[in-house]
Amino acid sequence: MQRYFLETPITNQPGQTFELTGTAVHHWLTVMRAQPGDQAEFVTTAQQVVIGTLKTTTDKTATVEVVSVTTPKVELPTPVIIACGVSKGDKTEQIVQRGTELGAAGFVFFDCQYAVAKWAPNKRDRKLARLTKIAQSAAEQSHRTMIPTVTYQPDLATLVAEVPHTAGVVAWEESAKQGESSQLVQTLRQLPVGDQLLAIFGPEGGLTPAEIDTLTAAGVKPAGLGPRIMRAETAPLYLLSAVSFWRELV
Amino acid sequence: MQRYFLETPITNQPGQTFELTGTAVHHWLTVMRAQPGDQAEFVTTAQQVVIGTLKTTTDKTATVEVVSVTTPKVELPTPVIIACGVSKGDKTEQIVQRGTELGAAGFVFFDCQYAVAKWAPNKRDRKLARLTKIAQSAAEQSHRTMIPTVTYQPDLATLVAEVPHTAGVVAWEESAKQGESSQLVQTLRQLPVGDQLLAIFGPEGGLTPAEIDTLTAAGVKPAGLGPRIMRAETAPLYLLSAVSFWRELV
Repeated sequence: MQRYFLETPITNQPGQTFELTGTAVHHWLTVMRAQPGDQAEFVTTAQQVVIGTLKTTTDKTATVEVVSVTTPKVELPTPVIIACGVSKGDKTEQIVQRGTELGAAGFVFFDCQYAVAKWAPNKRDRKLARLTKIAQSAAEQSHRTMIPTVTYQPDLATLVAEVPHTAGVVAWEESAKQGESSQLVQTLRQLPVGDQLLAIFGPEGGLTPAEIDTLTAAGVKPAGLGPRIMRAETAPLYLLSAVSFWRELV
Repeated sequence: MQRYFLETPITNQPGQTFELTGTAVHHWLTVMRAQPGDQAEFVTTAQQVVIGTLKTTTDKTATVEVVSVTTPKVELPTPVIIACGVSKGDKTEQIVQRGTELGAAGFVFFDCQYAVAKWAPNKRDRKLARLTKIAQSAAEQSHRTMIPTVTYQPDLATLVAEVPHTAGVVAWEESAKQGESSQLVQTLRQLPVGDQLLAIFGPEGGLTPAEIDTLTAAGVKPAGLGPRIMRAETAPLYLLSAVSFWRELV
């Protein structure tokens, strides 16, 4: 069944109706050619899932009747913010798309010394808007009940100051080389369920020792993610999978 | 440092020399323009890593002196074979590339009822050769000491009969919907370290109930991978990350 995120709160008692607003109207009516009687899933701003039936429609409006309301548990018990160095090409898009499937609560892209791309200030908003759209689409497909946020930070010091988190880790190749293999586990064990984890990943060229120092001074722990070298866009997927496995399966 | 997989055994005592053979010669000499005195890493057929110095060269031959020999532990303690339904486009390539970074021991692509693509028999060898090349390149970049195998099986019954494994799991959406969340953990707990895990993933269209029956009759366990719906090419990455986290970090 097609799934849409609602942009405004609705009354969600079965039998009541609401007016569908925003981009969902166009997609459901024009792209999917919905007819009265057709059903879709609507995720409310309160992270509930409403199954609704199209009652009446003009070309541009849709009145939907609430059939049922559920509150599925599909979000990671540990909200994870994935912070990555700005990358070239479609790498940022891949991180957002796959990371959303794997449950990320949000993404932050940051500038740093070895960033292989720059986001010009005048293009930044457009890039963030495009990535947010990718997050929304991936959230719909993976049956999430929230759309991950996508933001930008100019440097790591600002990032750790601005992004709320109870614990932070930075994936660091040198940690892995030194055989460090327990920091991520230790962090997850100590982090109260529901508290936010900030996970930081360098760009292809890596982070500088000075940048690592900035992070450790702010309480972020360097953590190895196993003995193999992963590309910049693969490491965040490893971390999200590990958090899901640990919090949702073990 | 550039890394090459050797195709034949060498004597690997420091100070001894060997003739480099195969595609590595061309790449090192012509693409990388190596000169006498330059060094590279060579992974032996015994999964050791040799640092070697180019001693003498003609355009097409390279004599290399062994400088040092190490036996790094970079392979997953639980070898995992990732079996996926044949997919369209670059999805198979993405599975092989990222799965290799994440430590897969091998990949099997299989035909099934809802496969969204077919591998014509006359093109199969070419596809497997291309995917093997992608696996080799990813293995070099991620500092693996083996190149994952890439094979094809015509159906699931043949696959479970032909691919050696001590335990098998199949990612099944219905398992996740029913709230099953412990089968993967249980399988990993019971699997002796070093024994091979076969992990099976349907194509985009999923597996049929009859195909699931075939697998369960062969002892393969349906396993949920958390409450979110993942695309066909994302689920194998989740599983490999989970196995690494469990066996290498926890």
